[in-house]
Amino acid sequence: MSETQALVPHVVILGAGFAGLTAAKALAAAPCRVTLVDRRNYHLFQPLLYQVATAALSPADIATPIRSILRRQRNATVLMGQVEAIDRQRRQVRVEGRVLGYDFLIVATGSRHAYFGHDDWQEAAPGLKKIDDATHIRRRLLLAFERAETETDAATRDALLTFAVIGGGPTGVEMAGAIAELARQTLIDDFRAIDPGQARVLLVEAGPRLLAAFAPDLSTVAQQALEKLGVEVRLNSAVTACSMDHVQLGDCETVATRNVVWAAGVMASPAARWLGAAHDKAGRVQVAPDLSLPDAPEIFVIGDTAAVKQADGSPVPGLAPAAKQMGDYVAKVISARLRRQPALPPFRYRHLGSLATIGRAAAVADFGRLKLTGRLAWLLWGLIHVWFLIGVRSRVLVALQWLWAYVTYQRGARLITSPGQPAD
Amino acid sequence: MSETQALVPHVVILGAGFAGLTAAKALAAAPCRVTLVDRRNYHLFQPLLYQVATAALSPADIATPIRSILRRQRNATVLMGQVEAIDRQRRQVRVEGRVLGYDFLIVATGSRHAYFGHDDWQEAAPGLKKIDDATHIRRRLLLAFERAETETDAATRDALLTFAVIGGGPTGVEMAGAIAELARQTLIDDFRAIDPGQARVLLVEAGPRLLAAFAPDLSTVAQQALEKLGVEVRLNSAVTACSMDHVQLGDCETVATRNVVWAAGVMASPAARWLGAAHDKAGRVQVAPDLSLPDAPEIFVIGDTAAVKQADGSPVPGLAPAAKQMGDYVAKVISARLRRQPALPPFRYRHLGSLATIGRAAAVADFGRLKLTGRLAWLLWGLIHVWFLIGVRSRVLVALQWLWAYVTYQRGARLITSPGQPAD
Repeated sequence: MSETQALVPHVVILGAGFAGLTAAKALAAAPCRVTLVDRRNYHLFQPLLYQVATAALSPADIATPIRSILRRQRNATVLMGQVEAIDRQRRQVRVEGRVLGYDFLIVATGSRHAYFGHDDWQEAAPGLKKIDDATHIRRRLLLAFERAETETDAATRDALLTFAVIGGGPTGVEMAGAIAELARQTLIDDFRAIDPGQARVLLVEAGPRLLAAFAPDLSTVAQQALEKLGVEVRLNSAVTACSMDHVQLGDCETVATRNVVWAAGVMASPAARWLGAAHDKAGRVQVAPDLSLPDAPEIFVIGDTAAVKQADGSPVPGLAPAAKQMGDYVAKVISARLRRQPALPPFRYRHLGSLATIGRAAAVADFGRLKLTGRLAWLLWGLIHVWFLIGVRSRVLVALQWLWAYVTYQRGARLITSPGQPAD
Repeated sequence: MSETQALVPHVVILGAGFAGLTAAKALAAAPCRVTLVDRRNYHLFQPLLYQVATAALSPADIATPIRSILRRQRNATVLMGQVEAIDRQRRQVRVEGRVLGYDFLIVATGSRHAYFGHDDWQEAAPGLKKIDDATHIRRRLLLAFERAETETDAATRDALLTFAVIGGGPTGVEMAGAIAELARQTLIDDFRAIDPGQARVLLVEAGPRLLAAFAPDLSTVAQQALEKLGVEVRLNSAVTACSMDHVQLGDCETVATRNVVWAAGVMASPAARWLGAAHDKAGRVQVAPDLSLPDAPEIFVIGDTAAVKQADGSPVPGLAPAAKQMGDYVAKVISARLRRQPALPPFRYRHLGSLATIGRAAAVADFGRLKLTGRLAWLLWGLIHVWFLIGVRSRVLVALQWLWAYVTYQRGARLITSPGQPAD
């Protein structure tokens, strides 16, 4: 590091998800150095991760190397590594043994799936947050059909062909729809001993309706669209037990299944612990109106890691647009401080709308007064997701593969890959 | 299984590579049932596997589900599983505990990389035969640059930025060219502490020239093209030792490197052991002129697993066209026998030509009298590989990604994925 560089204020950003990456890019023209730290070498477009898990897309289609996104931003450095500790007194972060001093720190380390006191369910009911989760779930889903094909015991075969998705939010709705399509459309001609079309797909929701963040009539539309695909929707059903061969709903019902997917809840990353900061029960850090820590104006927490309230007191939802808005906002706050400009007004979340797709040519879109369903909502969903993907390459590849899948009813990424395969 | 079915002769094919898959498809109209067994659920287009290892393509771009290839072939069944034993007396194959009786058996289980008595080199010098190999090598290559970026010890940094490819056949030549391009073109702007363009890429060949199967003047062209990309070509250099931090060439020279890729040799799958059959020193089964076992006319061995001689006494090369020709041939032999038609003349390999590419817009093509180099050979290489990919989807995706890479100098699949990442 040259001496001039050392005099330039240093902004360290932890996490290259939507929030952290947006902040890094928004600081391009600010009088500072930026170091973006992530334990992966890529930014992941999480809204489409379920399509990797259901064999429609490849991991690389929705993941972009962080370095290549920021290659032309000369004030930005990328560091791949795991955050180990934050020293607020010394204003330092430790990343795999290296110590980074900071003038401003932005914590955007996201969230992970949570089992609310049932961490032992993790093996039986994997969640969907990372690429490795997605290829793991893909492997399990596809192997279930392979094993059912050669299974001679009828009960085991039925359990192999029963799929239970836990959680009726957008991820759960999209997963259940995609699994039903995989079984009833993609795989329908591929087996000789079993009929994949007979696979049972359950979507289990503890609350009284699917897509609780949407208008109630859209919840009904989504449920009907899923039921048309052959998904059994179970509302008001809490999961009370979960193992490798069954899931228990409420007090009485036991469903024999070898395939449970967890989409029921998330927990913030351990940022509150690193920071020694106050947090809510989902682990999200309590922040001041400008998203900084109440007792440390040089530290900001944004994205899924922060507990932020809207004007009406409801929490800002864990959506990509919210994360990006926070990233943009703190970049502006930091720029203003560096330039000794007046402080910005408090962060205000602008809700742009909610979207969820339910398989082929069906979706629900809730833009407040404007509500869309069916093919139009589905087209909009596709356009918006392709638009927000990073880079021409991902956009073209994803759009083309969707077109191909739409025309042929096939899914292109049906690979059962390691771990668990014999070494050779 | 219905009784009628049981009366139809059963052809069991082990391995869904080029040889086995071609045989299965060529038996579509024959009066028999076909069961195609593979431990993977996909057919892999191996000639492009090095492009997965060097982050240009995704695994799913070159892998097609075997079931979806054969979905419309009603006499074909696909079984995913590992072959455990063959019982020649009872005419049975055991696949993960299941027993399959056969009337005809086609063994096409391919080959794997071999270390010729140095199996301990495997960890330091991974080979490239499977998708998991390719993602493992990709991970190592990309991590080497990431680690070099933060490494403070100059000698370690140099070792991290030194890449040694062992073996100067087509795979070695293509890997070395692709690694040089990755460093000098794709990653050139992405780092701040290191200059990826300074990476050292060695291609080590024990024999006196690269691409020994090609005409000598093409070997020279390939070597010059590699040197233009900054690859150091070492001929007449045998590897005498290999560990995680160095490779030794001959008696004297030691190269400090953290990245060795093995492309030096293959060994047939354990088919000879399963069959109790005679084999050559590379493990390839000795076959009769019709590719059956000399003492078992109902068992055929084809593809890389078989030792087959050409008219001039030289071995049939381990290339995709050779494997396909054998698959087609044995399907005809079996059809003729099932229909009680006269026996076919012995198998004769028709050499169509040899192709190898050396990075961007350079390749060598040897079609006997016609030899091509440079851009024309490269275009032909691309066209032929796209043409032989299975399915419209793979063709379009691969062609598009090549076009994108050609225009932008980028590589789209730069993901460092598991194993070895923290669980969350």
